[in-house]
Amino acid sequence: MSVFTPISESQLADWLKGYSVGVVSAFEPVAAGIENTNYFVTTSQGRYVLTLFERLPAGELPFYLGLMAHLARHGIPCPAPIADLADCYLSELNGKPAALVTRLPGASVERPEAAECAELGTLLARMHLAGRSYRGYLENPRGPRWWRLAARAVRPFLDAEREHLLDEELRFQSRHRFPDLARGPVHADLFRDNALFENGRISGVIDFYFAGVDCFLFDLAVCANDWCLVDPEHDRRLEQSRARELLGAYAALRPLSPPEREAWPVMLRAAALRFWLSRLFDYHLPRQGQLVRVHDPAHFHDVLRLRVAAASAPWFE
Amino acid sequence: MSVFTPISESQLADWLKGYSVGVVSAFEPVAAGIENTNYFVTTSQGRYVLTLFERLPAGELPFYLGLMAHLARHGIPCPAPIADLADCYLSELNGKPAALVTRLPGASVERPEAAECAELGTLLARMHLAGRSYRGYLENPRGPRWWRLAARAVRPFLDAEREHLLDEELRFQSRHRFPDLARGPVHADLFRDNALFENGRISGVIDFYFAGVDCFLFDLAVCANDWCLVDPEHDRRLEQSRARELLGAYAALRPLSPPEREAWPVMLRAAALRFWLSRLFDYHLPRQGQLVRVHDPAHFHDVLRLRVAAASAPWFE
Repeated sequence: MSVFTPISESQLADWLKGYSVGVVSAFEPVAAGIENTNYFVTTSQGRYVLTLFERLPAGELPFYLGLMAHLARHGIPCPAPIADLADCYLSELNGKPAALVTRLPGASVERPEAAECAELGTLLARMHLAGRSYRGYLENPRGPRWWRLAARAVRPFLDAEREHLLDEELRFQSRHRFPDLARGPVHADLFRDNALFENGRISGVIDFYFAGVDCFLFDLAVCANDWCLVDPEHDRRLEQSRARELLGAYAALRPLSPPEREAWPVMLRAAALRFWLSRLFDYHLPRQGQLVRVHDPAHFHDVLRLRVAAASAPWFE
Repeated sequence: MSVFTPISESQLADWLKGYSVGVVSAFEPVAAGIENTNYFVTTSQGRYVLTLFERLPAGELPFYLGLMAHLARHGIPCPAPIADLADCYLSELNGKPAALVTRLPGASVERPEAAECAELGTLLARMHLAGRSYRGYLENPRGPRWWRLAARAVRPFLDAEREHLLDEELRFQSRHRFPDLARGPVHADLFRDNALFENGRISGVIDFYFAGVDCFLFDLAVCANDWCLVDPEHDRRLEQSRARELLGAYAALRPLSPPEREAWPVMLRAAALRFWLSRLFDYHLPRQGQLVRVHDPAHFHDVLRLRVAAASAPWFE
């Protein structure tokens, strides 16, 4: 349950007077999510999600909301922020920064097949192409700088094998930065539960609150590490046919350059490292009063271990 | 039939490569509309309308598209322009300025009841409130300045009674301008066929290509003159209960000031005059090669005549 800041019906009705979306007919808290308080809000106009930002730095919020607005007006099926009567996306409710965004139809797919991976690849490429004209800038907040901080914080909790893997991987990644790869706004957290499907098509990409500017290839690697596992529970190697669909559909819209193809095994490791670190961090250093289920760091430990082992293998054709 | 500029499937597919909306699965010309060429376009992403602007001044197009984008991001159900990869709403196709906008669900209502008039009033008020923060500016292109030009052009075609009515009304209106009434972007053409309903709710307001900055009250008067007639074919007096619903629902969100209430009968006449003039103009001075059905000017001649006759009656409570 992720309502950190409860909202009353009359508070909501009052707040919505500052918008052009009509009057509330229903609202209910959303159980998912660990970063923000979310409510589903239905008005005489449509279906929305109200988000109260619990801990994201206020200075970063315009980047996220602006990016969603930008992508939405390019036809990407992502939540579109609704501007209030003062023409702002960001408002305040119950003492918290708050935003209203459109609610998208569809449901996430737990076991994607090749067809869904191809859909994802297509959408990711469209999103990257559309994002290039976005003028907002925020360096990926979970990039190499953050890795080093998080590594210092979690190292005391690791056994010798894990500490070794972590140090070796940080060293390896520091020798393999790719300033020449195509960059732009990336979602950076497009796990299966952040994509909604309807009739076999992606009807929504949600939760942009880890977005930032990074290599486009990093976004692909995050997806591959979650969407293309042989078996997420028991065999976390990449399943080649789904990975090929993901990358092939992507490259049909935005061809991958030779340096990108070369960087692929390193990027898979970088994406695994980033999530292993954040899982370790949340597991060993839980936030005060944190009530939500923490993901087991063992999953991404295993993913990273396997990507390191596979790094010498050919990636794609 | 209103396709002035035919588009081939391969032209369209090519053009859409500049957008992030996926690939075409279907497209068909739209029969309605007398100003532009419209196609319904369905892609792997969604449903859109492609508009080729046949005769609107190029300098005015950014105002219309910007207004639609502004209202859409405030939650108003209007067509949302899709930006292309160069981040522009306006593009070019087959030598014509062109834009892609979202296609809205629903159907127009030929014989609105009180409930639909109330829906319209609510939506119009929300649209006016949301429009106040729009920074674009275009004086209503069919305002008093245009009336005088159009009157000179059509006067030679009028019989004595009509010429007298026209001259008297122009004189009357020139003595009753209202610089103090609330102003902002208005749709200015919100006839029944420009509002789509679904399940009793307005699901779309379309065709913003006569929009401009004018008194909000003018927009209400245009609506009343079309939505609230006793019988559009045979009795064009205002039907008071529907007019009351329209104005009451509107005023519940944006209360009408005493000067606005006072101006109402004059504004009804102004709205009737504006459309009588454009119907006369299109009827007597058809465009070269014009193929489309022209509205009979007699309808608005009758509306104006009746509003003049009723102008001394109380308007609303």
